[in-house]
Amino acid sequence: MSGSTFGKSFAVTNFGESHGPAIGCVIDGCPPGMALSEADIQPDLDRRKPGTSRHVTQRQEDDKVEILSGVYEGKTTGTPICLLIRNTDQRSKDYSEVAQKFRPGHADYTYLQKYGLRDPRGGGRASARLTAPMVAAGAVAKKWLQQKYGTQFRGCMQQLGDIAIPFESWDHVPNNAFFAPVADVQQLEDYMDSLRKSGDSCGARIRVTASKVPVGLGEPLFDKLDADIAYAMMGINAVKGVEIGAGFGSVTQRGTTHGDSLTPNGFATNNAGGVLGGISTGQDLEVSIAIKPTSSIISPRDTIDLQGNATQVITKGRHDPCVGIRATPIAEAMLALVVMDHALRHRAQCGDVSSPLTAIESSLL
Amino acid sequence: MSGSTFGKSFAVTNFGESHGPAIGCVIDGCPPGMALSEADIQPDLDRRKPGTSRHVTQRQEDDKVEILSGVYEGKTTGTPICLLIRNTDQRSKDYSEVAQKFRPGHADYTYLQKYGLRDPRGGGRASARLTAPMVAAGAVAKKWLQQKYGTQFRGCMQQLGDIAIPFESWDHVPNNAFFAPVADVQQLEDYMDSLRKSGDSCGARIRVTASKVPVGLGEPLFDKLDADIAYAMMGINAVKGVEIGAGFGSVTQRGTTHGDSLTPNGFATNNAGGVLGGISTGQDLEVSIAIKPTSSIISPRDTIDLQGNATQVITKGRHDPCVGIRATPIAEAMLALVVMDHALRHRAQCGDVSSPLTAIESSLL
Amino acid sequence: MSGSTFGKSFAVTNFGESHGPAIGCVIDGCPPGMALSEADIQPDLDRRKPGTSRHVTQRQEDDKVEILSGVYEGKTTGTPICLLIRNTDQRSKDYSEVAQKFRPGHADYTYLQKYGLRDPRGGGRASARLTAPMVAAGAVAKKWLQQKYGTQFRGCMQQLGDIAIPFESWDHVPNNAFFAPVADVQQLEDYMDSLRKSGDSCGARIRVTASKVPVGLGEPLFDKLDADIAYAMMGINAVKGVEIGAGFGSVTQRGTTHGDSLTPNGFATNNAGGVLGGISTGQDLEVSIAIKPTSSIISPRDTIDLQGNATQVITKGRHDPCVGIRATPIAEAMLALVVMDHALRHRAQCGDVSSPLTAIESSLL
Amino acid sequence: MSGSTFGKSFAVTNFGESHGPAIGCVIDGCPPGMALSEADIQPDLDRRKPGTSRHVTQRQEDDKVEILSGVYEGKTTGTPICLLIRNTDQRSKDYSEVAQKFRPGHADYTYLQKYGLRDPRGGGRASARLTAPMVAAGAVAKKWLQQKYGTQFRGCMQQLGDIAIPFESWDHVPNNAFFAPVADVQQLEDYMDSLRKSGDSCGARIRVTASKVPVGLGEPLFDKLDADIAYAMMGINAVKGVEIGAGFGSVTQRGTTHGDSLTPNGFATNNAGGVLGGISTGQDLEVSIAIKPTSSIISPRDTIDLQGNATQVITKGRHDPCVGIRATPIAEAMLALVVMDHALRHRAQCGDVSSPLTAIESSLL
Repeated sequence: MSGSTFGKSFAVTNFGESHGPAIGCVIDGCPPGMALSEADIQPDLDRRKPGTSRHVTQRQEDDKVEILSGVYEGKTTGTPICLLIRNTDQRSKDYSEVAQKFRPGHADYTYLQKYGLRDPRGGGRASARLTAPMVAAGAVAKKWLQQKYGTQFRGCMQQLGDIAIPFESWDHVPNNAFFAPVADVQQLEDYMDSLRKSGDSCGARIRVTASKVPVGLGEPLFDKLDADIAYAMMGINAVKGVEIGAGFGSVTQRGTTHGDSLTPNGFATNNAGGVLGGISTGQDLEVSIAIKPTSSIISPRDTIDLQGNATQVITKGRHDPCVGIRATPIAEAMLALVVMDHALRHRAQCGDVSSPLTAIESSLL
Repeated sequence: MSGSTFGKSFAVTNFGESHGPAIGCVIDGCPPGMALSEADIQPDLDRRKPGTSRHVTQRQEDDKVEILSGVYEGKTTGTPICLLIRNTDQRSKDYSEVAQKFRPGHADYTYLQKYGLRDPRGGGRASARLTAPMVAAGAVAKKWLQQKYGTQFRGCMQQLGDIAIPFESWDHVPNNAFFAPVADVQQLEDYMDSLRKSGDSCGARIRVTASKVPVGLGEPLFDKLDADIAYAMMGINAVKGVEIGAGFGSVTQRGTTHGDSLTPNGFATNNAGGVLGGISTGQDLEVSIAIKPTSSIISPRDTIDLQGNATQVITKGRHDPCVGIRATPIAEAMLALVVMDHALRHRAQCGDVSSPLTAIESSLL
Repeated sequence: MSGSTFGKSFAVTNFGESHGPAIGCVIDGCPPGMALSEADIQPDLDRRKPGTSRHVTQRQEDDKVEILSGVYEGKTTGTPICLLIRNTDQRSKDYSEVAQKFRPGHADYTYLQKYGLRDPRGGGRASARLTAPMVAAGAVAKKWLQQKYGTQFRGCMQQLGDIAIPFESWDHVPNNAFFAPVADVQQLEDYMDSLRKSGDSCGARIRVTASKVPVGLGEPLFDKLDADIAYAMMGINAVKGVEIGAGFGSVTQRGTTHGDSLTPNGFATNNAGGVLGGISTGQDLEVSIAIKPTSSIISPRDTIDLQGNATQVITKGRHDPCVGIRATPIAEAMLALVVMDHALRHRAQCGDVSSPLTAIESSLL
Repeated sequence: MSGSTFGKSFAVTNFGESHGPAIGCVIDGCPPGMALSEADIQPDLDRRKPGTSRHVTQRQEDDKVEILSGVYEGKTTGTPICLLIRNTDQRSKDYSEVAQKFRPGHADYTYLQKYGLRDPRGGGRASARLTAPMVAAGAVAKKWLQQKYGTQFRGCMQQLGDIAIPFESWDHVPNNAFFAPVADVQQLEDYMDSLRKSGDSCGARIRVTASKVPVGLGEPLFDKLDADIAYAMMGINAVKGVEIGAGFGSVTQRGTTHGDSLTPNGFATNNAGGVLGGISTGQDLEVSIAIKPTSSIISPRDTIDLQGNATQVITKGRHDPCVGIRATPIAEAMLALVVMDHALRHRAQCGDVSSPLTAIESSLL
């Protein structure tokens, strides 16, 4: 009810603040009997962690995950899995100014209004650092889905500020700091260098996909697969827009174009983005998100202080000039958590067995 | 868990199928003591109902709502409010063909795969007709929010297929069949006439807003106000994209532009769309959605039949050539339900009292 | 959140008041493909309905159930099943006195305090009449569990006021108005006749069981099978105590006696009542509940009126002198709903397949 | 959904196993602004912790709690509070035998059947050790309720095996190892010494109460206050029975006796145990629970091994000969968590303000 638990059947409860002693999560509902160790989780955390290039925050956090429960002799037991990540590089002195003023575009103002007090150190609970436990939980979901269905999650940057990034190949994604699907990222490097120099920040567009998603996942009328994806994505820090499949492009499409034809060999196109009527079609899930520019910048901004007086604020400290740069593994993880939750939920009502349309299903997958 | 209940504190459970005996919903959690009768609900249902212009389905449904429970001597009692709408104009013979074939872009295929059987009459549960009970529930939420906070919900069409619609005035919205905020809708009429003649359908973009939303609504980390709005909107039939505030436009914005400055008189701009860190700022909520073209069209489409053989399908019967035309009251209602749910949830943790920052709050509202 | 939905995976949302136009429920999450008609539900409703003997309320209600949704061509579709029961015999004039005074032992006082107003007609929402929709929903659960696992639910009266009722045979239960497992109920008849004559009411103890419950149902740490049974039973009107297995008798047992030995042919005894560590053992579930005497009696009772002044109240109208008499089918239904919910929940995490201990499992069942 | 979260508005997610690295919980939904430190929590943990007398397990655990999140500068921030307790005295070698055999009356068998594997060390997740985080969470709830309403929770032992314990005074409870409300506990000491010598275990009956509970808490129809109390209590390890107010004694009461009269000065009696129609009356909550004898005993018991062969099992290691001895602070904590959850839930629907019946309410409290 209070919003710190994601999912219903694969329920991940997140806790912690940016500069508290630790962050982490508790996964409740993981199927038993799956081999699991920190080594399954750490790689995704490493993809997300700060300080890995000059284009992201220089905060040094190893983000080493510790499994506190739910695993016995290397296997999940079906009981809650607590994942703990200690905070090690807090510099709370950096935050004295923002404790007295509201950063434009930041949650400072709303947290204080909602709760009557707030932890200003590093954004407290509103920090994007709290996505780390979700990346960890997502790694658990990814492993189970991969083993069970062969499901695979991938993501990449589609646009960095003004620069549209063409899709060349998934192979390039791990080779650059931007998760860009292109071989040459010099233009992106230059763009970010220039932006940092100007003391400003920029937005980004990220694409995430899932392949080999079983047909039939998603609960109408409300917990539709795409509705839950939208919920998951919009819940990521700084996200302002979500598209499934053709997205906003479908506004100018005709029905004769948008509706994906079916053939004996499967769907001919994927304007649907893998979801029809809120239920997965078995095609790739295709999701695109808009990420706003970071609000913590060193350029002075007009604002008010705690007493309501006009002033200006400059955010020093260590911040990502484009939070979109590290957003790809986060979006992947959230998509994995949605699919995992629905995979388990589907079994509750419909069981594990194949549907009666096995022939069609397999031909279309 | 099975997805037919929307909301947690103001929980609306939806039931029914397009051509079953009735559709309806049960609202659990409505505050007691509010005056309520069918007359409070019917106007919004009338705004959504079919058959009101030549541009929408010609199915004749009065959509008369009946309050079956939860109201005593004209006031809500705090117990569940059941709202019933009888279906009166079912013509199930129209649906013999679609029972054997899958309409491209329709939920036919996924429902059958998920459940192993489906009700093909009028799309069964996947019909947009099931939004009617939500419009009814939304009217209850709107009334409470209006009385308590003065909150007001409005919506309009921003784009119809290829035609962008400028915003002239909210006053025009009730005066045309399109919920268009313009005085002259001749161009829209012509566009739809031509589209119908061609046997095709088109998409649309809808904007919905809420004003006088209390500051502080929304539950981090996951049930953020904007995350729940995205969930609500993406759950509406045919929606493929959701934006809050600057939305996808924020990708190309700079931090110095996007972050809304605060002044002693309030926020200077509203790129945030009324939400920061997942919590309402007190500014207007600004939401925009993309609606895909209707999949039920009379132009022949390539598909397969239940046996997996290639064939073509033509959808006769009565369908909206642009489901976006009737989407405005639906999107308003869903936004109202999200705000209502969060208004009640907020009270659970933080109580009804004003926050300690009353001075700032009131100056900014 | 507001308490009118029972269950998570097989979620039953209840609505209505004793003297409103209708009562009913919406079942969300029923597995698809099960044959279902009103004829599957009506027999259990008939077992519970009023007016069937002189020992229960003389209100005449047919309690005819109507399926409004979720069934197509005689089979469940997986979408919500709305069950409607119209109220036909309301005599609201009987309730003028209780609208002004609080009946001792009744919810009059607490509803008014909680909500600030109440529907006094027939107890409004607090009426035991609201158990009828649960009996209807329970019949759906019973059918699915019976077909899937052979699970069977039975119940009987163990004590009526001062009279302990020995267990002779399940066969006698349908043959008398008390659900008593004895051939001769003359003593019970006389007891009730005398009680009615004195204008008083009495309590009862009811036993319910389930056989052929699959091993492994129940979710630790909190949604234990026995915890959810306790929740379900204590939620029935007038219930003040719940026991599982040896119940309060276990206080004076020794560990060497209480712990049920396991043998290659199964458990030797059933002090556990079919649950260990919150998870079903495969043995019969054994549950016993205490039901308090009816609070609506014609003997004058000291109370206060709405203004807080001392007065007396006599409850006229039609009331059960022992609500326990009709409680057996209600308790059965609630037990069935708990088992059904857990059967579906179990599949979410652990799947439908047998556990690796099939040999032991089958030997013990 | 997977059962490790207790409560909806004050939601406590529990994790850990008896012999894993740590146990703990995450509290989501705690109201902001309350002073909180480990010192508020430790005293209740110390009341529950093992090794404090010769009558309980000799496992040495300090049960030192660490607050990992949700508190800033000594005050709750409204964000999740993670409470961590490290396990320090694990002796897993003791558990080699029980890994191969099922203890009668223990969850060994059901966990293995449900999940296909289990952590046998100290009972793993099924250990009563997992109540420690709930005692910690309960301390947070107690503090808030005490400050807000003056609510006070107390508990005591009513019966130890065959020995009924008269109620002399609450003052005696902290002065003996049994939480017994009597000055002289020599009889209890002797009873336990004799029981330990015989290698057996015994049951107990515990009473818990809450005073100054606000009127109006509890959500009909299902999340009744008493239903949730029954759920909470039956979920405590080893509990087999729950009573509210007159409990099973109400079976033989008459309506003229059971129903508590109202007077201008309040209720005359409290057979209801503080709940009518599932809603608190403002009187003391009165709850009584039955605790079965410990299943881990050194007397040999007939059982089967993992292969289903007949064998005997002796449980060595360190176990409580009567788990009821340490149950009082656990039951208090669970009661506090139920009341806390309902206090917050009540505000969601009905707000924080007093009901319109303030005059009556205050006179009756």
